[in-house]
Amino acid sequence: MKNKPVDALLLYGSSEENADIFYATKMFVPDAHIYIQKKNKKMVILNDLELDRGKKQAQVDRVLSFSTYQSKALKTRDRRGTTADVIEVALKELKVKNVGVPSNFPLFLADILRSRNFNLIPQPEPFFPERRFKTKTEVKHISESIHHTEQAIHKAIQFIKKTTVKQGYLWHRGKKVTPADIKKIINVSLMENECVAQHSIVAGGDEACDPHNTGFKPIPAHKPIVMDIFPKSIKTGYYADITRTVVRGKPSQAVLDLYQTVLEGQKIGFDLAGPGVRGSDIHEAICDYFESKGYKTGKKNGFIQGFFHGTGHGLGLDVHEAPRVSLGNDILQPGDVVTIEPGLYYRGIGGIRIEDDILITKTGCKKLSTYSKKFVV
Amino acid sequence: MKNKPVDALLLYGSSEENADIFYATKMFVPDAHIYIQKKNKKMVILNDLELDRGKKQAQVDRVLSFSTYQSKALKTRDRRGTTADVIEVALKELKVKNVGVPSNFPLFLADILRSRNFNLIPQPEPFFPERRFKTKTEVKHISESIHHTEQAIHKAIQFIKKTTVKQGYLWHRGKKVTPADIKKIINVSLMENECVAQHSIVAGGDEACDPHNTGFKPIPAHKPIVMDIFPKSIKTGYYADITRTVVRGKPSQAVLDLYQTVLEGQKIGFDLAGPGVRGSDIHEAICDYFESKGYKTGKKNGFIQGFFHGTGHGLGLDVHEAPRVSLGNDILQPGDVVTIEPGLYYRGIGGIRIEDDILITKTGCKKLSTYSKKFVV
Repeated sequence: MKNKPVDALLLYGSSEENADIFYATKMFVPDAHIYIQKKNKKMVILNDLELDRGKKQAQVDRVLSFSTYQSKALKTRDRRGTTADVIEVALKELKVKNVGVPSNFPLFLADILRSRNFNLIPQPEPFFPERRFKTKTEVKHISESIHHTEQAIHKAIQFIKKTTVKQGYLWHRGKKVTPADIKKIINVSLMENECVAQHSIVAGGDEACDPHNTGFKPIPAHKPIVMDIFPKSIKTGYYADITRTVVRGKPSQAVLDLYQTVLEGQKIGFDLAGPGVRGSDIHEAICDYFESKGYKTGKKNGFIQGFFHGTGHGLGLDVHEAPRVSLGNDILQPGDVVTIEPGLYYRGIGGIRIEDDILITKTGCKKLSTYSKKFVV
Repeated sequence: MKNKPVDALLLYGSSEENADIFYATKMFVPDAHIYIQKKNKKMVILNDLELDRGKKQAQVDRVLSFSTYQSKALKTRDRRGTTADVIEVALKELKVKNVGVPSNFPLFLADILRSRNFNLIPQPEPFFPERRFKTKTEVKHISESIHHTEQAIHKAIQFIKKTTVKQGYLWHRGKKVTPADIKKIINVSLMENECVAQHSIVAGGDEACDPHNTGFKPIPAHKPIVMDIFPKSIKTGYYADITRTVVRGKPSQAVLDLYQTVLEGQKIGFDLAGPGVRGSDIHEAICDYFESKGYKTGKKNGFIQGFFHGTGHGLGLDVHEAPRVSLGNDILQPGDVVTIEPGLYYRGIGGIRIEDDILITKTGCKKLSTYSKKFVV
């Protein structure tokens, strides 16, 4: 997919779900709406309920009324005032033919617009390449989400510290501690700070060896407990993404060594991260380090084990966005906010992941998350 | 858009965002994945990280490995193992040419698949028409979300009851009460019960006259306070959607009359709702009742006032789904779960909305939400 020249950009969706629309308008609208950008002129077409709010909040050049455009559309034969009809009128007014749309633009709308002789051209991701470079305000928003996340993780660790070790498990008030108990502490703390965490991961033992398992089984003692927390601020829309791994009880030397290795791996990431550095170089340096320490990656007993996910990813209005710090050609640049989150996972020993968020600066990188990495609690 | 015959259905997305995929598989997967249904045979193609979990959780006939299909794709010249390549291999194996896709299917994927001679046909909404008819299990899930929502609203009202009326506002601990104060009580209570409320509305006075305004200004005394709460259960994925309006202080007769009228309007909705009833007939009966009581709908002083939204909507894995209880041709049928939420909004007096969730039964309807409608608290 190449960048072909386009006369304008067209987005359609809810800015609460579609980060590109929110990025362009800085206004949360729950219902799907139309965004058009011709050169640097931005416009949104909102339904009447949103019009007043849009005129105040949307950081665009023109806020237009959907019903006004519907009326215009209805003057044409065979037009019923649908969304496609409204887009057609707006694009014609702007004398636009070649329209850049995101790769996930709705097919049904595209089919209709193309049948009316608009040339819809899916654009490569990221749709707004500049979205990866965070402004000071954006870094502030991300830092706020990070602050609330660190606070939530702190509360969880304080809770874990109070649990009793018995029969290989953590106990609290006569019951085995479950991932749900810890997630509740984290998610409620986040919600108190207007951050929504829908899919927090709290997993211990072998469950933590599957990075997509959000955690269900009682939390074991002596084994690493992975807590990967990535909430979105309701107010600003910006995410944080932090992982801490702790252990309660008496971890084996194998567990302690595994933690130390991941910690060293993350340090390599911090040391390398900077402007002009290839994400894949950072990732491969960490992979090499793990290999050099004898931690192999590959299938073992039918499971993928070792370090089998990327080192990091961009972070902003989406929890995963450009650039990637993993295989691929992305080169870090000042203004990027990325995670550095190496991990090692071996069934029997457990899973370790340590994740922080950093800002790429002109000279290197700055850690945005700084919460303690004390392992044994 | 008509239903053309198709050989299979194809969905692509994250089942955490795309309710149709979750409906089909009953498994939450954060990353985008492929779902194909040929006749009644369902299959998902998952990446290796999700494969084990998929085999346990996904309620489908076959759980296939993305990387296996990638390897198959790579045997064809010019194929690189992209998502489109994988879909191509899978559809060819199934000998499928005419593929039904949702209207919001990603354009970029569609363009590639069409260029490879698959006939992608956007289907009318709802994609799975049967999704509107809730099973007993689904009604149970919705009822659980409703229970947690009622509990959250109860806590909010208990808080409002404790506030002091002074200088036309509600006060608590020496400060004016804000929508954020009340939302925090509601959203934290919901999160304690694993329900996520991202966009709860708590708005008083004229702010409540704009049903999309989630509420920012200090809560006035003597004026209606609208609380519209629509959380999603993290565990089950099902929504509740309940609105209560209360007032603290001494409401004017106009405010009391407005509340009584909306309450009566909602009763008309409950009385009419049942199998075989047109949603528009219910909506129009309520509109007529409001008109007969002298409550006009239309522009006044530049604002739309009166009753200018639909009476209700289906509720399930999406907060708004089929059928609609408003203008349109939807006819209620047993198994539908819909909201009945008339409202009246007049600047100066305030906004009133009362919303409950009902199940259409074989003989009429059953109220799923039953929380008190005491207005003056």
